[in-house]
Amino acid sequence: MGIRVGILGYGNLGRGVEKAVTANPDEDLVGVFTRRDPKNVSIASDSVKVYSADALEKMTEEIDVLVICGGSATDLPVLTPKYASLFNVVDSFDTHAEIPRHFDEVDKAARAAGKLGAISVGWDPGLFSLARLQAHSVLPDGKDYTFWGRGVSQGHSDAVRRIEGVLDARQYTVPIPEALDEVRSGLNPDLTVRQKHRRECYVVAEEGADRVRIEREIKTMPNYFADYDTTVAFISMEEMKRDHSAMPHGGSVIYSGRTGDKKHVCEYSLKLESNPEFTGAVLSAAARAIFRMNGEGRCGAVTMFDIAPKYLSPYPDEWLRAHYL
Amino acid sequence: MGIRVGILGYGNLGRGVEKAVTANPDEDLVGVFTRRDPKNVSIASDSVKVYSADALEKMTEEIDVLVICGGSATDLPVLTPKYASLFNVVDSFDTHAEIPRHFDEVDKAARAAGKLGAISVGWDPGLFSLARLQAHSVLPDGKDYTFWGRGVSQGHSDAVRRIEGVLDARQYTVPIPEALDEVRSGLNPDLTVRQKHRRECYVVAEEGADRVRIEREIKTMPNYFADYDTTVAFISMEEMKRDHSAMPHGGSVIYSGRTGDKKHVCEYSLKLESNPEFTGAVLSAAARAIFRMNGEGRCGAVTMFDIAPKYLSPYPDEWLRAHYL
Repeated sequence: MGIRVGILGYGNLGRGVEKAVTANPDEDLVGVFTRRDPKNVSIASDSVKVYSADALEKMTEEIDVLVICGGSATDLPVLTPKYASLFNVVDSFDTHAEIPRHFDEVDKAARAAGKLGAISVGWDPGLFSLARLQAHSVLPDGKDYTFWGRGVSQGHSDAVRRIEGVLDARQYTVPIPEALDEVRSGLNPDLTVRQKHRRECYVVAEEGADRVRIEREIKTMPNYFADYDTTVAFISMEEMKRDHSAMPHGGSVIYSGRTGDKKHVCEYSLKLESNPEFTGAVLSAAARAIFRMNGEGRCGAVTMFDIAPKYLSPYPDEWLRAHYL
Repeated sequence: MGIRVGILGYGNLGRGVEKAVTANPDEDLVGVFTRRDPKNVSIASDSVKVYSADALEKMTEEIDVLVICGGSATDLPVLTPKYASLFNVVDSFDTHAEIPRHFDEVDKAARAAGKLGAISVGWDPGLFSLARLQAHSVLPDGKDYTFWGRGVSQGHSDAVRRIEGVLDARQYTVPIPEALDEVRSGLNPDLTVRQKHRRECYVVAEEGADRVRIEREIKTMPNYFADYDTTVAFISMEEMKRDHSAMPHGGSVIYSGRTGDKKHVCEYSLKLESNPEFTGAVLSAAARAIFRMNGEGRCGAVTMFDIAPKYLSPYPDEWLRAHYL
């Protein structure tokens, strides 16, 4: 039997984790847990049961790792510490300013229970964070740049959807090629946010809505759009469904550093056809790592910075050295 | 006082480690150790002493980590196990087939002495190995490709230099752009060695040497050149010194994988103006990691697969989470 994984929360990310866990031969999906009525949640895996989240407290003996799929604003700050006192847990918490507090709360709960919790797992934060840490550690004299996209930003799409008269919206973050080229050449430019990315919005408006006002409200929205060059295109609901239902994403961490007079450029980049499926795959690998590390006595909270890379793999150390070294 | 580092062996790599260690505020270079006559070795650091390698055995209390810079064919198989019984050690052993044996010998020696030894550190093996392991762990359904160059291959340059009538030679490994494009597009092609890389040789021949024979001997040399498209250019010693004394290198690990019907491409790439200086920088970061892990009680042999990324950095965990996560 493999590592017994539970999934709490069944949105896009939960579905991505389900797909990854069921494809991993060393992991078994024990159940999907929801705060909705389980009767109304139908999942991709035929043989796996959907439970109410309330059932979790009685299933501590049946689950090795609980992957918690929820929003960073209100779900994870409550759910991850709560369940870290019962299970090894993995989450994808990404509210940067709140990471220290979240880390401490998960650490306290997990440590008291002898469990291990990995927070902020995914690709950014996650794999991109590792690329930044690694490059800075090897070349202390240098500078990192992170570019995102072209890809759908859920947060920016939601912000547009909250505007009056908007039925649906999709926002693509697009890196600016000239900025990428300049950074890749090792020039270490100082770039404003506007110089690094532009934003493309596709909006389905209510019939008769004031499109000029909607476009203005988007383009002047502080933090989200005001500092960027933003384009807005109004489309039909059919076009939205046909052309914008995939969730591609990706990006690059580019580090340009030097040893004395010699320049070196390190780049880690991702091109993803499905952001939630790839993120789910990272969470499923972290679940494996957390289970193994807890088995060796580790408890408390960790991030990917604390996980020796070998723990992410299902293969034994000798095999890894023979095949990947 | 910082981590006290010694360097054994003062060729290109030893000089690269020296440059990195002396630039790291948390590391102090204690000495350079040589198997040559120390009087004949002059190093870049004014304030650092050059010792005979024989002095090492009496300096176990003065060195926290010994970075061993030598060849994988004959030096490291002897030196790393020998000194792992006295010091924490780091090497860049890269003879792939011999890694299991080397690992075991370093492990045995280090474990008996309560020391920790990191083998096969650098960028390939090393950072490229990490990229392969990470991608396979996240996306089990996929394939990795490693491209090297454009860069100088020391081994191939040496092979050309051994041909009769050759005074000096430099060999560049060059990835083939069409192959790179095909792999980056996620097509998972099957590629022969000839389709992935070509080889460029610059040769200084003795006066009156038979250039036709030299070119033929290069192009038909088994393993090194016969399976590749190779070009040979004869140049003067002045041109060699002027145009080919830098040691640039780099390359890319490209992983193309899928979650069901969704494709994802992960790429880690390096563009290095100096291969030995960048490799030296990786070794200096590994020296830091090894020192810290041994301080926590770890002993035996490890590779970069066993090193939690945070140990590579001089900064505390909270700082890393705040700045790089």
